[in-house]
Parts: sequence; C-alpha cells; structure tokens
Amino acid sequence: MSDTATNDPSSVGIVEQHQATLFDNGEPLTLDCGKSLSPVQVAYETYGTLNADASNAIIICHALSGNAHAAGRHTAEDRKPGWWDQYIGPGKPFDTDYFFIISSNNLGGCNGTTGPSSIDPETGKQFGLNFPIITIADIARLQKALVDHLGIKTLLATAGGSMGGMIALQWALDYPEFVPGCVIIASTPRLTAQNIAFNAVARQAIMADPNFNNGDYYDGDGPTNGLAIARMMAHITYLSEKGLDKKFGRRMQNPQTTGSSFDQDFAVESYLRYQGSSFVTKFDANTYLYITKAMDQFDPFPDPETTAKRLEKVNSRIMVMSFDTDWRFNTAHSKDLVKILNWHNKNVSFEEFTSPHGHDAFLMKSPDYQQSLASFLLRLYQDFVIESTTKKNKDNR
Amino acid sequence: MSDTATNDPSSVGIVEQHQATLFDNGEPLTLDCGKSLSPVQVAYETYGTLNADASNAIIICHALSGNAHAAGRHTAEDRKPGWWDQYIGPGKPFDTDYFFIISSNNLGGCNGTTGPSSIDPETGKQFGLNFPIITIADIARLQKALVDHLGIKTLLATAGGSMGGMIALQWALDYPEFVPGCVIIASTPRLTAQNIAFNAVARQAIMADPNFNNGDYYDGDGPTNGLAIARMMAHITYLSEKGLDKKFGRRMQNPQTTGSSFDQDFAVESYLRYQGSSFVTKFDANTYLYITKAMDQFDPFPDPETTAKRLEKVNSRIMVMSFDTDWRFNTAHSKDLVKILNWHNKNVSFEEFTSPHGHDAFLMKSPDYQQSLASFLLRLYQDFVIESTTKKNKDNR
Repeated sequence: MSDTATNDPSSVGIVEQHQATLFDNGEPLTLDCGKSLSPVQVAYETYGTLNADASNAIIICHALSGNAHAAGRHTAEDRKPGWWDQYIGPGKPFDTDYFFIISSNNLGGCNGTTGPSSIDPETGKQFGLNFPIITIADIARLQKALVDHLGIKTLLATAGGSMGGMIALQWALDYPEFVPGCVIIASTPRLTAQNIAFNAVARQAIMADPNFNNGDYYDGDGPTNGLAIARMMAHITYLSEKGLDKKFGRRMQNPQTTGSSFDQDFAVESYLRYQGSSFVTKFDANTYLYITKAMDQFDPFPDPETTAKRLEKVNSRIMVMSFDTDWRFNTAHSKDLVKILNWHNKNVSFEEFTSPHGHDAFLMKSPDYQQSLASFLLRLYQDFVIESTTKKNKDNR
Repeated sequence: MSDTATNDPSSVGIVEQHQATLFDNGEPLTLDCGKSLSPVQVAYETYGTLNADASNAIIICHALSGNAHAAGRHTAEDRKPGWWDQYIGPGKPFDTDYFFIISSNNLGGCNGTTGPSSIDPETGKQFGLNFPIITIADIARLQKALVDHLGIKTLLATAGGSMGGMIALQWALDYPEFVPGCVIIASTPRLTAQNIAFNAVARQAIMADPNFNNGDYYDGDGPTNGLAIARMMAHITYLSEKGLDKKFGRRMQNPQTTGSSFDQDFAVESYLRYQGSSFVTKFDANTYLYITKAMDQFDPFPDPETTAKRLEKVNSRIMVMSFDTDWRFNTAHSKDLVKILNWHNKNVSFEEFTSPHGHDAFLMKSPDYQQSLASFLLRLYQDFVIESTTKKNKDNR
C-alpha cells in the first residue's frame, strides 16, 4: 500500500493544523491545582465532515509524546503521515466517510497547545517550571472547551491509547452525557510503582542535566542529553523483549570495531541512540516532566466510595483493549479497569490482542485489533447517528 | 534470627579481606582483547577451612555491583553483613562446616581488584578508559590464577547469580577438569536485545554526564549524576512489578506536598533516589562501563559448531536455577541454557522457583531455593570430598 497523501484512497490526504485561542476573555481555564490559565492556545486538526446534527464527532486523545497531527500529511512532501494514520481515514476504523475526527495537542504539550514552553503573559517569557501542575482531568477539560468552541453539543466517542486512554476514560467520568462511546487502549486506571519508577528516573535524568537550569533553559541548549536518556529508557519499555530480539537480536552495528570501545556495538544501541537524538529535536523537556507527573497522579478510583461516586452517572459504552506483549501497561492493568467497571454494572467490553509489538502495538497494523475497533465504532454510528437521525426525521414528519 | 557477627552461630563471624598481587614477575595476565596487565591485584575473602587434600573449595562469583565481601562482617559494628550472607555460613547452603568458600572482587572492579580506577603503572595515574576491554572469560581467568595462588589443585564448584552465573559457567567451559560442580542462578547464556538496551542506556547516562570527562575524572567529582541514573534504572529491572507494588504501591512519601512539584511524591521515587545516591559513593562509573560491556559481549554459544567445541570437554554437574518473577534474566534465559546443555548430553539439572523478588531473588531467603542449593552442594561434597578421601585412605592402607 502506498501511503503518499496524493494517491492513497484510504488517506485523509493533505491536512491543515488549526489553532484556537480559548479562555481569552473573562473566564480562565481553572485547573485542579487551583491555579488558572488565560488565554489558552489549542492546536488541533480535524478529519472527515461534521454531519448536520453534529452527532458524528470523535475526539482522539494522544499519548505522552504525541501531538495533534494524527492523520494525513501537512504537505505532499512529508516523509511520514500523522501518528495514527493507520487507523484514521476512509475505510479505516476511524472512518472519515462516517466520522468527524478531532485531534488536539494536550494541555501542557509542546506542539501548539499552551504548555511550559509557551509565553507566560504575566512575565513575557516562557513559563518553564512556573507552569502550573496539570492533571489528566485538566487535559480533558481543555479538550471539552475545544469541542464546545467547535459548536459540538455531544461527542459520539472519545478514544486513545496509553495516556490517551486515560484521557478518554476521564471524559467518560467527567462528561457522562457527552460520551456515548469510549475506547481505552493499552492503558490503565492507575500507574503501578514500576510505571512510576520509570517515569521518576526519566525526570531525574532530565533534571540532572546541567543544561536543565531549573527549567529555565529556553535561551540555551536545554537538557538534551537528559531528555535523550529519558526517551531511550522509555522507548525500551514501549517494545516487547521478543519484538526487540526479532528486530535486532545480538546483531552488531559495525562488526569491524566490535568490542573495542563503548561506542554502539550492537544495532539495538544504535537504534536507541537515534530515537533519543531525534526525540530531543521535537519535544520539550519541561513538557516531559509535567505530562509524566500527570500520568503518575492519575488515579480516578482510589477507594470504593470515590469509585462509586465517580461511576454513578457514567453511561458510556466502554471498550477496553490490551496487547499480550505490552509490559508498560500490561493486560492486568486493563483487567483491573474492566473489573472496576463490571462491579459497577457499567457497559464494558474487553479484548486482549496478540501482537509482537509490546506497548506500541496500539499504533501498529493488526487485523484483529483493527476489526474490533471498527466494529465498536460502527455500532456506535448505527445506534447514535443513524437511529438519532431516523428518530428526528420521524419526529419532523 | 539475630545477625550480629558475635552471637549468631550461622554467621561466619568477623572476616578479613586479603589482597593478592598476581602476575607481578614475568608472565602478565593476557586478556581476550590481546592486551595484558601486570601486576594484577585481587581482593578476596575466604570462609571455612580448606581441608587436607584441598578438595572442598567453592568459588563464589559476584554480580555487576558485588564485591569480595560475600559473608560475615569486617567489624562487629558493621551494620550489614556481606552480600550473600544468607547463603554462606555454618548450616547454610554454602556450609562453612564443610566447604572452603573463596570470594574475590572481579577483574575490572572497584573494590580492591585491578580495574579502571587502579593506577596504570605505565603512566602513574588511573587507567580510566585506557583500561583494556575485558570479557567474562578474563574475569574467570584471573579467578583461576587466584585459586592457583592459593595452592588449590581443583575446585569443588563454582557458583554465582546474575553475571556471577555467567562467570561460573565460563569456569566450566574453560577449566573443565577443575570444576566438578557449577551453579548458575538467575543468569543467562547471552543477553537479549532488551538486556543490552538497558545496559546501553545506563552507559549513555554515565557518558553524558559532563563530569565524565572521557573517563578521566578521578581528580574531580566524577559522573555521579549519570551513575545514579544508571543505577536507578537498573534497580527497577532487578525487582518485579508485583514486588514493587507490594512494597510501595502508590504510597506517597509526603502526603502534604503531593503533586505540587517534581520532587519525590511517591515512596518508590524516594527509594530509588536513595539507591542511586548511595550507590555512587561506593562504585566507580568506569567499572560500570567495562562490566556491562563484558556482559553484553558474553555469548559462549554463538553457533552450533562453536557450541559443540566449547562443550566437548565439559563434564561438570551443572545446576541452573531461575525465579518466576525475574524479568531481567527471566526463566526463558535459563531454559535456553538448559536446552543447549541437554542437546549436548551434559549433566544438567534445572529448577524454577516462585518468588516475589524478581531478579534480586537469588539474594533473598527462600526455603525451596535454599534447600535445592544445599542438596546440590552436599551431594558434590559426598561424591567428590568424602568419596575421594575414602579412596585415598584405602589406597594408603
């Protein structure tokens, strides 16, 4: 399959990124920490067409290092399409012949939405560590404001993988009337001590870099070494041991010089180094701190009372999906979530898929996963778009 | 059980560390890389008594961050005993009522054996990165020289966990007549791409520290931040996800300040930071580079021909042990080794133990593991010490 934007009928083609300025007059965005932001910029893209009664909108929630550019290309020359292009487009699960897809950069991000690298209007310079601590609920709150801004009264669904799944879940908890469907992939209702530990060491690597300068590095080089270490370590956790072995095994990068120094002897070392060095050219270290902290703190079901209260009004159809080789958020995480939802009689389905790709599997082609995702979304379309239109037509007769 | 050295009958008590100077006149230690070292210091300890015919000696091989101090205390005031004290002593598996235990700091180490922090006689200053690249076989070669120096003609066994298991195996391959028994615990015949990846990122963290100064840091602070990051990351891989969750879960270190900054919110973060900062006071960053590289390069069975040749003369009884929650060197690693040995008709037994402790389980108390280890060693004693003495007595009659 060719995936150039120009001749691939399953591609959304050339897409444009938009920027909305929200909370710019009057009411600021009030955050869980008590602080507020005003104005707030949001970078977003949309794919497909909003139908007449605005009932076919799905918001895609991105993971730690994602951005608003989920599908298509910005120019015909772009080497790669958006990060979830395999799943968004005509005939794909997020089928743009049916759905209106919204994808926005998360609050705290560094790709067009207000975050620590944005200018603090109070000081005229970048926020850095003066940016307020944010939560997954704050991220969903800003997305909700964007959806309001787009004139959409109710979504059809929220969907996301990894941290995106946490945001998708948060929507179902905080805006129960607004989310008929919710797709939570390779995600978790709470991080384990091991998950937190990996995030903590990543943050330590960033903060130990002398160029970190307590987050005030925008005039200089920035903590690129620390951020690269953080990314390399995280990247290992996104892949399965078997997948890494299949892809790299013990293959040498340069058999001539093997064993003679601490340079990258093995192909896997060279690959990781490339991942680290390319990541630092497009990601802000402070965003890494804020977003990993938001993940660590996410815990919507800390005790039975809070859980019961949070779930009381939830009436989304929830689809939970996991992958057998994912060890960042393994299937046990998904099962924990499913159990909580089942014990409160929520409408939840669950499927574990076989994949060699570890945590990253949610981004990868896989026929079973693709089919289950497509079926879930089309059923939502059937029940909430077609039925609702039919009912309206009847009412109008 | 009290474990002060003075009143615990199962402790080896107060022990002394020795240092041998080897390869100091004439023949140097020739390494796999072709370079050589002369002289070579070796720090070692012994526990128990060498019997009259010197047939009861077992050499203990330590892991990445271990040292020669495997059991007992150096002074009555020592807060902690040696690293394998739970398994070495009267009535313990490495029973000092029967065995003469030798434990030495590995070549390339930083605890009394020649390594990158030792003085290079050619320059009068520390080797740093001028230290030659070493292999697991080089480490075993130096241990063999130490054993020769001690006047021991044959060992009863070699034993070790993690990297120590690789060294124990290397002994069986390189000195087949010298090793009646070989115990390989939580170890591997070769690192996977994931194992190498974790080692590689650890090395990157050390080398990215501006205080690393290309390994020439002994007059300054040294790359303590980088080494701490390396250690924290490695430490996560030594524990199981369940073990970490049981020990720390999502417990907060200081509930009052939680979520307000990037300081250590969770207890697991605080624990890791302590592990990192205490490690750098006792370990040399260059040693970390050399030893992890030696682990990465270890691959005694790269192809069928080499494997057959390497194993041809091996006639040790080999015991392979793994732990179900170990994911640094999981049971699949041990099974790979067992399969290789079985296919070549070697005398090998294998057991997987249940433990919550992940890779670190080989250091922890566990009745099943303890019993199997004790039984294997006592059978060796029966067959190679008692039988041999009986035979000699008969011959002398």
